[in-house]
Amino acid sequence: MTLEAYLEDRRVEVDRALDGLLPRPEGPAARLYEAMRYAVFGGGKRLRPALAIAVYESLGGSSKAILAPAAALEMVHTYSLVHDDLPAMDDDDLRRGRPTVHRAFGDAEAILAGDALLTLAFEVLATHPREAAAAARADAVALVARRAGASGMVGGQTADLEAERKPAELAALQWIHAHKTGALLAASAELGAIHAGAETADREAFSRFGHALGLAFQIADDLLDRTASAAVLGKTPGKDERAGKATYPALLGLTASRREAERLASVARAEIPASVGDRGILDALARYAVERPS
Amino acid sequence: MTLEAYLEDRRVEVDRALDGLLPRPEGPAARLYEAMRYAVFGGGKRLRPALAIAVYESLGGSSKAILAPAAALEMVHTYSLVHDDLPAMDDDDLRRGRPTVHRAFGDAEAILAGDALLTLAFEVLATHPREAAAAARADAVALVARRAGASGMVGGQTADLEAERKPAELAALQWIHAHKTGALLAASAELGAIHAGAETADREAFSRFGHALGLAFQIADDLLDRTASAAVLGKTPGKDERAGKATYPALLGLTASRREAERLASVARAEIPASVGDRGILDALARYAVERPS
Repeated sequence: MTLEAYLEDRRVEVDRALDGLLPRPEGPAARLYEAMRYAVFGGGKRLRPALAIAVYESLGGSSKAILAPAAALEMVHTYSLVHDDLPAMDDDDLRRGRPTVHRAFGDAEAILAGDALLTLAFEVLATHPREAAAAARADAVALVARRAGASGMVGGQTADLEAERKPAELAALQWIHAHKTGALLAASAELGAIHAGAETADREAFSRFGHALGLAFQIADDLLDRTASAAVLGKTPGKDERAGKATYPALLGLTASRREAERLASVARAEIPASVGDRGILDALARYAVERPS
Repeated sequence: MTLEAYLEDRRVEVDRALDGLLPRPEGPAARLYEAMRYAVFGGGKRLRPALAIAVYESLGGSSKAILAPAAALEMVHTYSLVHDDLPAMDDDDLRRGRPTVHRAFGDAEAILAGDALLTLAFEVLATHPREAAAAARADAVALVARRAGASGMVGGQTADLEAERKPAELAALQWIHAHKTGALLAASAELGAIHAGAETADREAFSRFGHALGLAFQIADDLLDRTASAAVLGKTPGKDERAGKATYPALLGLTASRREAERLASVARAEIPASVGDRGILDALARYAVERPS
């Protein structure tokens, strides 16, 4: 199976899980549920769920069991995008070719839809897989919360805001990427390992795998923003550049950025534990990070 | 011990727990941690933690063990206030006599500080008490997420926004109060019962106790907004009235509202399970809801 076919299969499964987990748009808060669904079903690649599923399957699990926790990762990712797009933050009107949630539903509704998605993610992580040991579910909540919160993703978003007010430096950019992007990818890979019953050493190796993979994807995204067309991006290309946003391409140039993304993909591959039976998909994910069609 | 002394003792303990759980303001995201602390240490009554602790103690527990989960409830409450105060929502400049978080730190920082507080709450619930069974911790996360999320508090906030755009009706107001306020108070009482190892029937009774108590407090707050001075409120009184906000006093008048708050306090007292050894503090909390100094 090619990686593209694998990702497409998993995407369909994850979307079905998300549909079952999100509230139906009815009752006095129907508009909130509509906004949550609009945000989630906006055409994402479902990279974080795919990563959790791929790790889980590489350790012998079957994707069905891990779908709900994997879908929770997408809820966390989606909430962060909804809040990031708000006028008070990046002030984006378009995401993946459609109006952002606050443009379609209003600012207050976008704030609340983000809040509700984040909260639902933790409810799902605490209750799924239903047959998993409670310790694994509690571990999953703690892991995702730590990586998504003040010392992880939200910390990275804050540092990113601060960085816009002062000259960019590579060390600051690395810290931002590691927290804003790397942390949740690290949690995604480790979540798959937790539910597969992996030992601590392997959990940590998968965490580093996801982290390096996330940084490689981030640089690849920033490269795409420089080189791809609006049709491919679903948003106006070159926006980061015009906004004077610190990115790898802006600080290091295109060639050195490509080289760094490739290095990170190699780091990721080297972290895959020897205990993994079939490393085909994990290897392919690391290659995909730097060889995406653009 | 009087209820006032009890609440003050618990407030000091909860504040100490919060101080230990919140990140130190240092590193690249120091401003986020400052905003989180500013939001949390703004002089709240710590009613939700006190409720969880009071239930836990009434079932024989000692407050020390439940402090961290109780503090997590305050983080959830605080995040909801920070987001509620934003310009896109209620647009409040003052809370408890101080500038709101977005006035002191900026809108983006307030959004992120709220996000980080909510996330940290779930990390704490998943990991504390450290000696508790993992099943109780996973239950606690699921409970608080369900009550705070789309089908609970955030759903209530959304319906509240919608209600501002159409004529108020009592049924709609009851739904809003039950979700926006009642849900998290219900979760607070039930959280104490979960960690005390209560049976399902008692957990549910405590949940109804907290819910009725929450509604009584909400009506009492709305009465205070009509009758108290700015010095007592720490904000401009009568704001709800001028904003045309639907409240019990606006819909039913002062006398009928007082009567409804008293009825709810009686409902709460009637829900305290017979298995409870010392019901003194729980009884006093229900009376306090309708007899607060104003």
